[in-house]
Amino acid sequence: MNKVGIVGYGITPFTKEDKKIDSILLDSVKELFKNNSHINRDYIDAVLVSTNDNSKYLSPILSEMTGIQPQIAHSIENLCNSGTNSIVSAYSYIASGLADLVLVAGAERYDSPGSVLEWDASRGEYKHPIFWSSFFTKSYKRKYNFSDEDLAIVSVKNHKQAKENPNAISNKTFTVEDVMNSKQLTDDIRLLDCSQPCTGSASIILGSEEKTKKLSEKPIWITGIGQKTISAGFTKNTSFTSMESTKQACETALKMSKKDIKNIDVIELHDAFSVCEPIALESLRFSDKGNGINMIKELHNTNNFKINPRGGLIGCGHPLGATGIAQTIEITQQLQSNASKRQVDNANVGLVHNMSAAATSSTVLVLEN
Amino acid sequence: MNKVGIVGYGITPFTKEDKKIDSILLDSVKELFKNNSHINRDYIDAVLVSTNDNSKYLSPILSEMTGIQPQIAHSIENLCNSGTNSIVSAYSYIASGLADLVLVAGAERYDSPGSVLEWDASRGEYKHPIFWSSFFTKSYKRKYNFSDEDLAIVSVKNHKQAKENPNAISNKTFTVEDVMNSKQLTDDIRLLDCSQPCTGSASIILGSEEKTKKLSEKPIWITGIGQKTISAGFTKNTSFTSMESTKQACETALKMSKKDIKNIDVIELHDAFSVCEPIALESLRFSDKGNGINMIKELHNTNNFKINPRGGLIGCGHPLGATGIAQTIEITQQLQSNASKRQVDNANVGLVHNMSAAATSSTVLVLEN
Repeated sequence: MNKVGIVGYGITPFTKEDKKIDSILLDSVKELFKNNSHINRDYIDAVLVSTNDNSKYLSPILSEMTGIQPQIAHSIENLCNSGTNSIVSAYSYIASGLADLVLVAGAERYDSPGSVLEWDASRGEYKHPIFWSSFFTKSYKRKYNFSDEDLAIVSVKNHKQAKENPNAISNKTFTVEDVMNSKQLTDDIRLLDCSQPCTGSASIILGSEEKTKKLSEKPIWITGIGQKTISAGFTKNTSFTSMESTKQACETALKMSKKDIKNIDVIELHDAFSVCEPIALESLRFSDKGNGINMIKELHNTNNFKINPRGGLIGCGHPLGATGIAQTIEITQQLQSNASKRQVDNANVGLVHNMSAAATSSTVLVLEN
Repeated sequence: MNKVGIVGYGITPFTKEDKKIDSILLDSVKELFKNNSHINRDYIDAVLVSTNDNSKYLSPILSEMTGIQPQIAHSIENLCNSGTNSIVSAYSYIASGLADLVLVAGAERYDSPGSVLEWDASRGEYKHPIFWSSFFTKSYKRKYNFSDEDLAIVSVKNHKQAKENPNAISNKTFTVEDVMNSKQLTDDIRLLDCSQPCTGSASIILGSEEKTKKLSEKPIWITGIGQKTISAGFTKNTSFTSMESTKQACETALKMSKKDIKNIDVIELHDAFSVCEPIALESLRFSDKGNGINMIKELHNTNNFKINPRGGLIGCGHPLGATGIAQTIEITQQLQSNASKRQVDNANVGLVHNMSAAATSSTVLVLEN
């Protein structure tokens, strides 16, 4: 299999702006080419668009707007992990030899139709994601004897970290008390426990070994890929205190990269809601079962940014189709020692965790410098 | 690059039925597993859904409904060539080694939101595809001195061929006079010159060399792939009497398969409208320029089914996301000598041509037995 690396990226602030999806896509691609003016658009073999937007033919549209005439061009959708699905697809085009340079552009509007999964009848009338996250929260608190205050630390930490990220939607810090006093949405979830849908875009170019070495000053390599879909319906999950799809995806990715979870220096994980962060850490086996919250508290107290350095979905906002790409860009910046005040010490191996629909599917990527 | 073959397929009649997209998808997948009960669903590594439907998360939904828990799962959209884009993506997952068995399921409803490209401002108020096809028709007739009656032969031939296809929406034959007397939609286009949007589904499983040899009695191999996007906007086309994206995609596919266009025994091409068939034949260089219509007349008169044996889009109907997959299934059946009354003599090398939006993008596949 050909080696695949990250050649360049572009990202713009996450906002609540009301813009058309093609303009949003264009924002980060323009930023990408501004940062990487040495990349000749004629050599881009594929343009993949990651979005839940209902607009059609967005890859040819983006290509026309940016002066690219690719061979491969299409959109990819899988709700909240559309971004990493697109990156894995780009990886396969390069690893197979069908392409040498692939642009992956992800974007979403704040009012994305992907925010609620209408199909999932197992959720009854409670189709909004706050209901599955309530289920996870109640189960996790009960099993490990945690309180709402304990879980609030996730939001406190991630907002603090987002303050160092110029592209994050949030630039405020909050205390545990602030989280507890924010609007109560269900028995178990408050407003500040939630990531918010937003308008945003993130783009990345992947390349073959030769192209990456030629075009990137600090090549970062994708060395591990794992994906798993358990179901589409929320109640097909076998546990509400762990994420089976995450566990399996992580095992596959670590095996492919020949790494142990202990080798991971920095993680971007899918904290759609506060409870997702400890459960994901435990499902990735980065933390022992029931110890995720304690690990998060310890990291927060020591000002260690190694989990969700950019502020996570809670701090950054969650433009569905862009999120997995933004996570991958953050790990790239970390491994390039290019993450300014968010920089984690000795970051050589990083992990991206991106999931959809109550963790019914997950992607895990391992990146190395 | 690992060799990639076709392991099995399923297809159901194209209709005007009003059904939900997940049920439509399921129809052909059920048919696939009915025809291939020896394929163990546990070994399917990826499920790719090809559609223009606005529903989200369809790959995990289809996976849950069919008892598959894939690693890779997402939807792919690129208007009318979503189907072949999905097949090329499946190919790359297998050729790269990320997957050994990939299910590609395409489906569309008769009222698909992909039927009109809202974005294309270059079409002015004339966004419906009958307007770009009128432009092509007028240009082609003028350049090569053909009449509407000359072009009507495409519809006559393809309806005749569709009559031998139990899954085609049409089972009537028409004369040139019938085509001329059908409702006039523009100066240059009549109702029977058009393919019609419809409800339909087609599914295919691709496999690695080992899996294909093990699971298929008559393996068919994808030996050539070519794709090209010129633009999204119709007026960026440099010619209205040829298809540049088709020409380039075909050159790439033939080079990859080490074939000459003269080696092709049977072709499924994208006859969205009558004029598309001669222009596509010429852009593929299967016919000399300006001679496409004469070739089609000759084939019709000798009852030779080698172009669009299943009846083309005009005879079969055009469920956008399913079309490219249905075309690939037809070529597979032809190369397996399994196409009943539609069978072409000595079919060993076949070609699929699938395009979108006034031929602004095209896919060409070469298949061999």
